[in-house]
Amino acid sequence: MKPINVGLIGLGTVGTGVTNILLGEKPVLEEKLECVPVLKAIADRSISAKAPKMNLDSSILLTDNPDDVINNEDIDVIVEVIGGTDTALNVVQKGLENGKDIVTANKELLAVYGTELFEKACQVGKCISFEASVCGGIPVIATLKDSLIGNRIKSIYGIVNGTTNFILTKMANHNVDYGTVLAEAQEKGYAESNPSKDVNGIDSAHKLAILAKLAYGLHFDFESIYCDGISDIQLEDICYANQLGYTLKLLAISKRTSLGLELRVHPTLLSHDHPLATVNGVNNGVYVVGDAIGQIMLCGPGAGGMATASSIVADIVDVGLGKAKPMFDNFRYFKEQPIDTKVIDILEISSRYYFHFIVADIPGVLAKISGIIGQNNIGIASVIQHEEIRHGGVPLIMVTHQAREGDVREAIGQIKKLEVVKGDVRFIRIEDTLE
Amino acid sequence: MKPINVGLIGLGTVGTGVTNILLGEKPVLEEKLECVPVLKAIADRSISAKAPKMNLDSSILLTDNPDDVINNEDIDVIVEVIGGTDTALNVVQKGLENGKDIVTANKELLAVYGTELFEKACQVGKCISFEASVCGGIPVIATLKDSLIGNRIKSIYGIVNGTTNFILTKMANHNVDYGTVLAEAQEKGYAESNPSKDVNGIDSAHKLAILAKLAYGLHFDFESIYCDGISDIQLEDICYANQLGYTLKLLAISKRTSLGLELRVHPTLLSHDHPLATVNGVNNGVYVVGDAIGQIMLCGPGAGGMATASSIVADIVDVGLGKAKPMFDNFRYFKEQPIDTKVIDILEISSRYYFHFIVADIPGVLAKISGIIGQNNIGIASVIQHEEIRHGGVPLIMVTHQAREGDVREAIGQIKKLEVVKGDVRFIRIEDTLE
Repeated sequence: MKPINVGLIGLGTVGTGVTNILLGEKPVLEEKLECVPVLKAIADRSISAKAPKMNLDSSILLTDNPDDVINNEDIDVIVEVIGGTDTALNVVQKGLENGKDIVTANKELLAVYGTELFEKACQVGKCISFEASVCGGIPVIATLKDSLIGNRIKSIYGIVNGTTNFILTKMANHNVDYGTVLAEAQEKGYAESNPSKDVNGIDSAHKLAILAKLAYGLHFDFESIYCDGISDIQLEDICYANQLGYTLKLLAISKRTSLGLELRVHPTLLSHDHPLATVNGVNNGVYVVGDAIGQIMLCGPGAGGMATASSIVADIVDVGLGKAKPMFDNFRYFKEQPIDTKVIDILEISSRYYFHFIVADIPGVLAKISGIIGQNNIGIASVIQHEEIRHGGVPLIMVTHQAREGDVREAIGQIKKLEVVKGDVRFIRIEDTLE
Repeated sequence: MKPINVGLIGLGTVGTGVTNILLGEKPVLEEKLECVPVLKAIADRSISAKAPKMNLDSSILLTDNPDDVINNEDIDVIVEVIGGTDTALNVVQKGLENGKDIVTANKELLAVYGTELFEKACQVGKCISFEASVCGGIPVIATLKDSLIGNRIKSIYGIVNGTTNFILTKMANHNVDYGTVLAEAQEKGYAESNPSKDVNGIDSAHKLAILAKLAYGLHFDFESIYCDGISDIQLEDICYANQLGYTLKLLAISKRTSLGLELRVHPTLLSHDHPLATVNGVNNGVYVVGDAIGQIMLCGPGAGGMATASSIVADIVDVGLGKAKPMFDNFRYFKEQPIDTKVIDILEISSRYYFHFIVADIPGVLAKISGIIGQNNIGIASVIQHEEIRHGGVPLIMVTHQAREGDVREAIGQIKKLEVVKGDVRFIRIEDTLE
């Protein structure tokens, strides 16, 4: 069997990780495999600054121009670890046109341009592998696509962003507010200087788009994913929820219901004893429900150079040994739209809810608020009201039974107008069955 | 691409699950794949009793003789779900000789005869897939073999037997003794009428043998795995350990150390906040440490007809699409012994330990016991001694720092001989770093 010739485009944290695994002192792949990948070329716009530090063999082509790799006839597999959708889109498109298989860690590229890139790969008879695009080192793509192929996937619940999970874990465990923890995360390198795609949930939505395509084959518009981030999360809600037995996580959720498919990213309360509630810090966790397997959870490092490189190397071997292509060719979800499932509007979903009100400390307030809630077909499961005065009123916390989001928004709209209600009304969705 | 013709041997719980997935009302595989497996033949010794209940298509060959399937020229893939090592060994050997690929759920067969069966498969140019042999529906084989191929595996810690995990969870959560829970597990079908292979750890050792081969390529003798079961576990030890912050699990452990490779199955205390400590009931969980990925955990249903069938169907597709063979052919660990790693004796391992003594309530006892422990190079980390009288003495609980097992056994031998020590001395190994 001929060696697998690899061209790497991007020598950041992940690209360096891939280089370290392929060229390490005691290369593990040579110990395990008869046919191993050979790193032939590396392109990076700062190659002249980075390469000398890495003690690379002189046989490896080093360039600052991706085209030198894409147009190189010796190369079989292009590893794209640039990120973003500008150069990366060009690299993947041209690579496919030049007859290269693609391995990528680029969730944004696949979430936004996945459908057309998969189509192009099929046309030219090549394949795209992308384990590293979701949850770094955790084999969630292989699990959904291959290991659970015999399952109709019912739902996926994922903690798929390490930055936000670090922030929420730290807020809960150290009783610190959002702004303080974000600053610390930026200092430690767990959050970028512009953390908006992480904290507003867009990064999680990109990953959910990829997982949903594997689970349901939906060719949906990325914009149809409902997306709420964590930047408005108040420490006091985490504390009240904790008293009620819940842990707050930013979840990416897809769920097949009788009404259609739910696709949503938002802060979510989970029962303390749910396996996902124990996935802490920068770790990721994905919980999948399938009709044959029941429930399964995978957790581990969702980011980091070496962990992500671990997934990329697995993909290189998969592609290089010819294991990736038969699946890529045969998997209908990459090509067509086999399920007649529509993505339902957030107002149509059903969930349990946590409410936080600040109310005037006068008689009749609870009756008024619970009256409006009842009139909107929402049942109240539990209530906390203490005597403390905060924010010019008394905090009133409620947890509902299952209710329709449209009804919840209507009720909140009415409650906000009450004179006895002071300041912001907040709600957080609760998932406690995870089925 | 031609369809994948499947012959199923064994129509028990798992075989029925496979049939249900392949022949279900809305076959999920047809929705996902262009080329799907076709069930051509089923052999079971009670086929005439079982088949009529299943509403099978008349085109499927039904027989009570495995040879009718093994010798059938139409069949590409044999699924062996008989279990045991008598008929199953014959089925797999003959199937390979007849040019069939093999999918099996048989951990005992692979643990004991794996080396020679893999060798035979390589000789005849066929492959053996065995995801279902360890942890039912959890893709632990694919993860170790494929997803973590770029990693040097440092260690594996697995709760790989659902029966014993059910028993230990129930003992801890309901404060019930071993015998009572075992009887309940047998009544519920979680334990077999002869549960010896589960409770004595042999089943876990079979699975560890398979995982270790994938992680280290060791061609070791199955008998070299140290194996202790749970039948001597006392409820009071679970309670004392709980007070000290530990949960008891039956763990299968493999660990690469500077001395060699540790391979062992035994009751183990884990810190309450370790992810494996929250894997409860009949669930399984496997925690893997690799040099690139760091730590990763998979958990879910380790047994059950449909969950195990989920893994078998994934293997059938893998084999049928030609994805399994390139890896089977290229994976050195199936063929040769690439690592110069010896399995080290249990007396050479290093661990922390929990000790339970019953001692006379007289002055100087603690000094005598802790003196012997210290003389054997063992440091004491914590001690519990209450005033209660039990079993004719006072319970004395100790937790040690890291110590060599040989030293621990020596110390215990000396302590047992003390007149002030009454009844049994017990110890349980503690793993609290899991690195």
